[in-house]
Amino acid sequence: MIQKLIEKIVEKNAPIVVGLDPMLSYTPEAVKAKAFACCGETLEGAAEAVWQYNRAIVDAVADLIPAVKPQIAMYEQFGIPGLIAYKKTIDYCHEKGLVVIGDVKRGDIGSTSAAYAAAHLGKVRVGEKTYAPFDEDFATVNPYLGVDGIQPFLDVCEKENKGIFVLVKTSNPSSGEFQDRRIDGRALYELVGEKVNAWGEQVRRGAYSNVGAVVGATYPEMGKLLRQIMPHAYILVPGYGAQGGKAADLAPYFNSDGLGAIVNSSRGIIAAYKQERYACFGEEHFAEASRQAVEDMLADIRPVIG
Amino acid sequence: MIQKLIEKIVEKNAPIVVGLDPMLSYTPEAVKAKAFACCGETLEGAAEAVWQYNRAIVDAVADLIPAVKPQIAMYEQFGIPGLIAYKKTIDYCHEKGLVVIGDVKRGDIGSTSAAYAAAHLGKVRVGEKTYAPFDEDFATVNPYLGVDGIQPFLDVCEKENKGIFVLVKTSNPSSGEFQDRRIDGRALYELVGEKVNAWGEQVRRGAYSNVGAVVGATYPEMGKLLRQIMPHAYILVPGYGAQGGKAADLAPYFNSDGLGAIVNSSRGIIAAYKQERYACFGEEHFAEASRQAVEDMLADIRPVIG
Repeated sequence: MIQKLIEKIVEKNAPIVVGLDPMLSYTPEAVKAKAFACCGETLEGAAEAVWQYNRAIVDAVADLIPAVKPQIAMYEQFGIPGLIAYKKTIDYCHEKGLVVIGDVKRGDIGSTSAAYAAAHLGKVRVGEKTYAPFDEDFATVNPYLGVDGIQPFLDVCEKENKGIFVLVKTSNPSSGEFQDRRIDGRALYELVGEKVNAWGEQVRRGAYSNVGAVVGATYPEMGKLLRQIMPHAYILVPGYGAQGGKAADLAPYFNSDGLGAIVNSSRGIIAAYKQERYACFGEEHFAEASRQAVEDMLADIRPVIG
Repeated sequence: MIQKLIEKIVEKNAPIVVGLDPMLSYTPEAVKAKAFACCGETLEGAAEAVWQYNRAIVDAVADLIPAVKPQIAMYEQFGIPGLIAYKKTIDYCHEKGLVVIGDVKRGDIGSTSAAYAAAHLGKVRVGEKTYAPFDEDFATVNPYLGVDGIQPFLDVCEKENKGIFVLVKTSNPSSGEFQDRRIDGRALYELVGEKVNAWGEQVRRGAYSNVGAVVGATYPEMGKLLRQIMPHAYILVPGYGAQGGKAADLAPYFNSDGLGAIVNSSRGIIAAYKQERYACFGEEHFAEASRQAVEDMLADIRPVIG
């Protein structure tokens, strides 16, 4: 799957991913009003609103980008109807030819981790039949439980040609609380990075492995170090834009081949119309504002790649 | 919410929780056959089978236990229909007066963590209305992202009188891969335990806080140390039974008041009928086998509590 992602990144000259993390507070009033008129002020109404919001944005930006990253929490908060909207979003993005990174940050052990891997990347057997329940292309995974939590995902990645991005150094202010603690003179995130590299080698076919890593744009020095520790891991980089990460900080996340990283922006793209910079579009043209924000993000990032 | 859990534990003299982690391979053939006859060999059929399986077990054991712990991965693997069965299980257990610990191991940052907290423990606003999407009483939470991921859960715990159990030392063989690494002479799990204690103090009202911890039964020495580090945290103890934890190992997890820990058993209870010990019940009486397994677990554990 990493090959497919790389091909799309190269084809579109766009090492970026749009985070589809819809909040009702971002959703334009007209979209909400229409959804509530149809389904009421219910979980179904909220789910319909975020799905229509997503669809309009995907329609506006799909030709510019290789991938999307829906954050499942934003759908899970609307219960079952929200999760139906999550699945509709995945299917729609696949129809549009986009790679889908499910930002699910799952992590458990043994048969439980296997169940998550089946849910998001694999297939589940029911009697004589098999189903791919959510069918993302990649999933984000939490490493705190060690390899017992990762191996079931590796097995599914091998079987189904899917991929994972393991949390290594997250973009948030308190990520250092545990991740930066020093063990024998080195930070925990370095040890996790080494493991990610080793896990990735188990399933690597080409220059890059189906096992990638999450490293926040807000910590470029650590990104540089982790790039060296995990030479064959694709790095998914959150934290650009709204969280404070700058384009100039992104260079160390890429390898000299110009590959190796994919930069996420969520609200900077999907809620672009709320920024002063894009206010000229007006709320009704929110999707066009998102397209312009993607183009601006690409213009910002392309020059820094080696 | 911890008060409510403690009251039920005391009332039933049962510091245990039954893990509702249904796998199709555990589900009795007759239950599956009936579900597939109604819904086909589909995700809906699988979800119907695990729901009927759960319901029979809950009916058989509800009077003996204070709480259940459904593992969401086992439902998520059946996609949307599976998650509907998860929600039905929660609601049914509430009707039966049981405390519900959602074993979701969620963990993210900022608004995303807030969305998970709303999904599982809190409420979400849609227009002028509010909804409690999954409405568990407790949720398990992963600490790798630091307090940014925990604070939104603390806020919801305060507002809604709900609780969390933070992963500190998990029961699996590879849990030491990161959790045992030594930082300034102490293990990472100790530092996480200290943070859990501090987070718990923020919301503590009585002897125990709504912020508990997960510490595996398979590491009793570490359990003893963590009991000291987190005197006011309830400890949710997985790993008893099928994973190898013995009753004699459980004493250090309890405080001298006889409280402070709740021991989980999942497949040891729900798939009891598959054990040689309970084979006399026969597959058709799987629920009675589960009831006997609960009684045996209680007889095993009660003597070790101070």
